[in-house]
Amino acid sequence: MADDPTFAVFDPDLPAAVGDTPAVAVDLVRLNRNIDRMARRARAGGVALRPHIKTHKSLAIMQRQLAAGAKGITASKSSEAAIFAAGGAPSVTIAYPLLDPAKIDRVLAAAATPQTGLRFVVDSPAGVRALGAAARRTGAMLDALVEVDVGLHRCGIDPGADAGLALVRTIDADPHVCFAGLLSHAGQAYRAVNAEAVRDVARTERRIMIDLAERLRKDGIEVGEVSVGSTPSVVLNDGFEGITEIRPGNYVFMDRTQIALGVAGLADIALWVVATVVSANDRFAIIDAGSKVLSSDAGPHGSDALAGFGLAWHADDPGRGAMTIAALSEEHGFVVHDGKPPAIGTRLVILPNHACPVANLAREFMVVEGRTARRWPVDARGCVS
Amino acid sequence: MADDPTFAVFDPDLPAAVGDTPAVAVDLVRLNRNIDRMARRARAGGVALRPHIKTHKSLAIMQRQLAAGAKGITASKSSEAAIFAAGGAPSVTIAYPLLDPAKIDRVLAAAATPQTGLRFVVDSPAGVRALGAAARRTGAMLDALVEVDVGLHRCGIDPGADAGLALVRTIDADPHVCFAGLLSHAGQAYRAVNAEAVRDVARTERRIMIDLAERLRKDGIEVGEVSVGSTPSVVLNDGFEGITEIRPGNYVFMDRTQIALGVAGLADIALWVVATVVSANDRFAIIDAGSKVLSSDAGPHGSDALAGFGLAWHADDPGRGAMTIAALSEEHGFVVHDGKPPAIGTRLVILPNHACPVANLAREFMVVEGRTARRWPVDARGCVS
Repeated sequence: MADDPTFAVFDPDLPAAVGDTPAVAVDLVRLNRNIDRMARRARAGGVALRPHIKTHKSLAIMQRQLAAGAKGITASKSSEAAIFAAGGAPSVTIAYPLLDPAKIDRVLAAAATPQTGLRFVVDSPAGVRALGAAARRTGAMLDALVEVDVGLHRCGIDPGADAGLALVRTIDADPHVCFAGLLSHAGQAYRAVNAEAVRDVARTERRIMIDLAERLRKDGIEVGEVSVGSTPSVVLNDGFEGITEIRPGNYVFMDRTQIALGVAGLADIALWVVATVVSANDRFAIIDAGSKVLSSDAGPHGSDALAGFGLAWHADDPGRGAMTIAALSEEHGFVVHDGKPPAIGTRLVILPNHACPVANLAREFMVVEGRTARRWPVDARGCVS
Repeated sequence: MADDPTFAVFDPDLPAAVGDTPAVAVDLVRLNRNIDRMARRARAGGVALRPHIKTHKSLAIMQRQLAAGAKGITASKSSEAAIFAAGGAPSVTIAYPLLDPAKIDRVLAAAATPQTGLRFVVDSPAGVRALGAAARRTGAMLDALVEVDVGLHRCGIDPGADAGLALVRTIDADPHVCFAGLLSHAGQAYRAVNAEAVRDVARTERRIMIDLAERLRKDGIEVGEVSVGSTPSVVLNDGFEGITEIRPGNYVFMDRTQIALGVAGLADIALWVVATVVSANDRFAIIDAGSKVLSSDAGPHGSDALAGFGLAWHADDPGRGAMTIAALSEEHGFVVHDGKPPAIGTRLVILPNHACPVANLAREFMVVEGRTARRWPVDARGCVS
């Protein structure tokens, strides 16, 4: 693509369209293309698509994902789930163990009108007890997916032990909680070094999930859903046989990490940060975007394979190539130049290491279409509880 | 202090007082003590105190700083300055080179009623021209401080060259812009390895600033303000002779970085994150605070001297000692336990690596006094433009 003289790293109209800097720009053409492509991928693989909205936290983007065929969404936290249920999600999986009665009740209340399908996740008897108690308080029947640790070593039961069967039995013993299937997140795909290593992670995840589902079925347990997900492992894998649902999040925007993994190319990047050079010295051009815009993420899940905190192109002359952002203060970025710093006032267009925290730090997206930009709020920004 | 059996790492009432987790708790007793101590330090040193509000972004905390004797505040960005001017700051230094006419006009409009004293910062002829143009548009006379690079190599003129004198001449040539003095930020103090290294940074900063002021005075230029600042270098130094003003920010909260530098002790920490254990495995207790609460900052200005992303104590049993947060996902923290993970539902109290981005990510502070907590908004959260 870089050999194609017509290839544009970013839409040439984007840097001027955003107005004030620093700005978090979303390229609407690329956003739509990413959304459509993932929907097609899910259809081709015979799996349902339930995107994770933690990446964008935007009701407008969710609407596009649903219109393209997503059956519902995935959220991390109860406050996110409440906003997206109230905002029209037909169903929400809260892919996070909820234990606090107030958090569970918050989601149930938000999902009551309009009626939103809910799925909770458990990985401990304490989680099942919390759901059971909430079900009895509200008179609802609650669906629970069992989270499985497929190698990230974060949440989830150990698939090698008898923990899965034991937890399903605990669920079955509560007449108000219904076992809905298995769920996993192979976030260690972000620590992979290349596309083949990502495929390995996806292969292992699928094998673990299929094996556990089979073992449960042999015990007479119906396993409805087998849900997996992360953008790298749903793009790079050997197929979805035995899987019923995928939950990618980052794919709507893509970022420098996905490029490094071989999951995306520069032409897929839909989220860019536009910044202005405010000072310069013999080593650095200083820009008006720091860690309060770009975050300090070297990559997701503590991945640190990338050098620096993003890549920056001249807005008017991307052909000069990308410069590395070597360091960040809170409101300044240190861009390494080639001895001839860009003039003060020059706009730079930045590819972030990790798009998700950039969206969460933004008040709004500047959604660029042609030469104009519209403001879309980041509706669930800062919803961490 | 740790040998004193009555010493409490944090107020024992704090973890329960905050309510829902994750929460960003502010200990009001310690906040007040930090504010008073810095005000006394400034008075004893014969310098004015103009705290940087980027740390807390809170009008309520600014009011306490002003009540303790601060003469005004420092802000990074025009949007912050506008909120704090409208919120009652008697004077604001925008310690950031403003070039965009819209940004300068925004600050001037916000400072018009009630009338707020403003000081702008320049480090280039482009900055002087931008101020001059704004002054002519609005009929105001604008004060400009010249920023000096004292080693951070971020913004600021090179003090070793003739850039300082040349820039002051450029300012003098504009009848609408008035040279108000010199300003520096020795942020490289955060990369120091111990207290003596911080003192060295402060010594160098003061020497550079005094020398430059003297050279300008020899040329007949009046240098009103000689303003320096960063919490480490105003706490650890050889005195303030020749300095007129200090601009520390982080001191209101302090954090793990300040402890590592020898600037603060555990008893000075006023900002804590309270989180809950939601899952556990053989290596990690998983908590409900990740990079969207704690940030991924290893430390300010790309300092990476700290291992992990914070320290975590059992809320009910801090005497067991601190556990390291080894990794962060967006909504999960990976806490290394000693083989016996805390029970699911246990609250942990976390000392963040860097308090400033934690405050910027929060919607509100839970300000704890005794067994109760009040909500204080983070008024200028996300103001990056």
